[in-house]
Amino acid sequence: MCSAEQTINAYGWAATDSSGILSPFHFIRRANGDNDITIKILYCGICHTDFHLAKDELGMTTYPLVPGHEIVGQVTKVGRNVSKFRVGDKAGVGPLVDSCGRCENCDEGQENYCSKLKWIFNGQFEDGLRSYGGYSDKLVIHERYAVLIPDKFPLEGAAPLLCAGSTVYSPMIYFGLAEPGKHIGVVGLGGLGHLAVKFAKAFGMKVTVISTSPNKRNEAVEQLGADAFLVSQDQEQLQAAMGTMDSIMDTVSASHSLLPLVDLLKTNGKLILVGAPVPPPELPVLPLLFGRKLIAGSACGGMKETQEMIDFAAKHNIAADIEVVPMDYVNTAFERLAKNDVKYRFVIDVANTLNPSF
Amino acid sequence: MCSAEQTINAYGWAATDSSGILSPFHFIRRANGDNDITIKILYCGICHTDFHLAKDELGMTTYPLVPGHEIVGQVTKVGRNVSKFRVGDKAGVGPLVDSCGRCENCDEGQENYCSKLKWIFNGQFEDGLRSYGGYSDKLVIHERYAVLIPDKFPLEGAAPLLCAGSTVYSPMIYFGLAEPGKHIGVVGLGGLGHLAVKFAKAFGMKVTVISTSPNKRNEAVEQLGADAFLVSQDQEQLQAAMGTMDSIMDTVSASHSLLPLVDLLKTNGKLILVGAPVPPPELPVLPLLFGRKLIAGSACGGMKETQEMIDFAAKHNIAADIEVVPMDYVNTAFERLAKNDVKYRFVIDVANTLNPSF
Repeated sequence: MCSAEQTINAYGWAATDSSGILSPFHFIRRANGDNDITIKILYCGICHTDFHLAKDELGMTTYPLVPGHEIVGQVTKVGRNVSKFRVGDKAGVGPLVDSCGRCENCDEGQENYCSKLKWIFNGQFEDGLRSYGGYSDKLVIHERYAVLIPDKFPLEGAAPLLCAGSTVYSPMIYFGLAEPGKHIGVVGLGGLGHLAVKFAKAFGMKVTVISTSPNKRNEAVEQLGADAFLVSQDQEQLQAAMGTMDSIMDTVSASHSLLPLVDLLKTNGKLILVGAPVPPPELPVLPLLFGRKLIAGSACGGMKETQEMIDFAAKHNIAADIEVVPMDYVNTAFERLAKNDVKYRFVIDVANTLNPSF
Repeated sequence: MCSAEQTINAYGWAATDSSGILSPFHFIRRANGDNDITIKILYCGICHTDFHLAKDELGMTTYPLVPGHEIVGQVTKVGRNVSKFRVGDKAGVGPLVDSCGRCENCDEGQENYCSKLKWIFNGQFEDGLRSYGGYSDKLVIHERYAVLIPDKFPLEGAAPLLCAGSTVYSPMIYFGLAEPGKHIGVVGLGGLGHLAVKFAKAFGMKVTVISTSPNKRNEAVEQLGADAFLVSQDQEQLQAAMGTMDSIMDTVSASHSLLPLVDLLKTNGKLILVGAPVPPPELPVLPLLFGRKLIAGSACGGMKETQEMIDFAAKHNIAADIEVVPMDYVNTAFERLAKNDVKYRFVIDVANTLNPSF
């Protein structure tokens, strides 16, 4: 365990029971080590995972829980071994804050698949301290797990890139989807889906948004720049689009059948799941066999590709479409999130609205 | 429809109803065209699909049905445009006998995924003639859909390569499994599985056979040269092997859970289904997401890769382990096949045992 000299005081908002209601909370973080940077948190996105864990919906929450894993802020301190950051730099932090650093996954920059990875909240560091997320004033983190945010990048719109952006970008690269002219379907138009459309368009791909809601056509095509829109319940539209897509990115966590999606794919097509439908769907075996198609899962990216994603986003002016809210709006934001009542991500203006005087 | 001058007489054994019992049968094939070769059939493998279609278990059989799609024979006639074969050559034919020849799939040598492909039996050609398979004396086929069998290749052991061999070889290449030192699991030790072991070993891979039957250990390791054997019901063995395989080839059509197989894969691991489990299994979404794993399906190979497979097999002395049977044994062979009572493929000695005088 850490001694008092090795810790610093921090504060934020925490859930204390499975009501999931957040309230002000004081806690400690480790002091800045030789390889660490300290970040004054400016903005933090609100992701569904924050909400699910705050309510212990996965049965794995330890309270108090400070959520938040889409963080941007300013570097206020750097350890003596730190090479990537200087004081004053803007830094981004996603879900990942530690890994073994020595395994095959870590060696290949995919720390996100290290068996010893540690998440930014609801975990415990080697020193015994609990990990707390970005709904808080500051963060201390090994520089490996932070990325540099280029100057002039709009920080509030950058925050959701650290998880949602990374989650859609990573498989586009890894599975070779991101080729100009290739046709991708994007299922669901939420925090992940709207960023998938933006990245895919920046890669020069043809994008069809697939949604259960016919009324999302306008925002998909006019506002986000998708090339086409497909209502997933419309058999005629589905029939006409069969066998036309090189890949599909499925961002939907609600239960749904994968068969219509697999049928939309060309031979050798790839269906990538970045949401986790509950209950798990049936595997449409025969359409896979007769079209040499694949279904894969993918999580948020490793640190190397997260930095590449941020640099690509900065170059192509990709930021999330967001609604900025004050810290004390978080419980209302959670309620609205449960109804998908946001376009497309809440971002907390932490620096200006988190009040220390409680 | 063809006129009589455009056809030749042929004979074989056919199922005439859903009893699936085969008996002698006379029929016609088209005469040899400019791009065709005529093959005197020497050997024909017996695959489960022959059996299922003979009994109309898929509800798509038109009788009479002459099964057989793992064929080797000798070329007896070549059309004037034929460039790949000369009279006297040994030729092999698999499930595929026609495709559009113009689509993207055909252009890329994956005629097997052409939407207009025609199977060797239970189909109809453009000229109106029905297609009949290899349990027969001769075959007329466009040279594109036949492969050249190298001299000195043991023909009876080569026959099952045309479907079973191609089916396991194709995804090893396409999905990049076939790298020396990579660890592959092979689920099921039948016609497909035993060939998967042989090809994988020839590629220099580490092979673990995964089976429900502990008593298959000896044949897997001692006879086929697998490096390890895993009993799929043994939780202790499964636990010890978790996260150790780069890929798994699943050849089993009986119902089974995919979760234990996905758990055996490393990060980025690939589970390739070449059998079609009935009923379709549940997709283990979370393990896919948290390990960036994929599940794909794959059918038999296209013509280009089937020729490559045959050449590779000839070079590495890969042939199927078979039981050669006479033509009039086919109904008994079907009965034994239903009980998986064969190691690992029946092959009919067509030329020596198919009697024309009925």
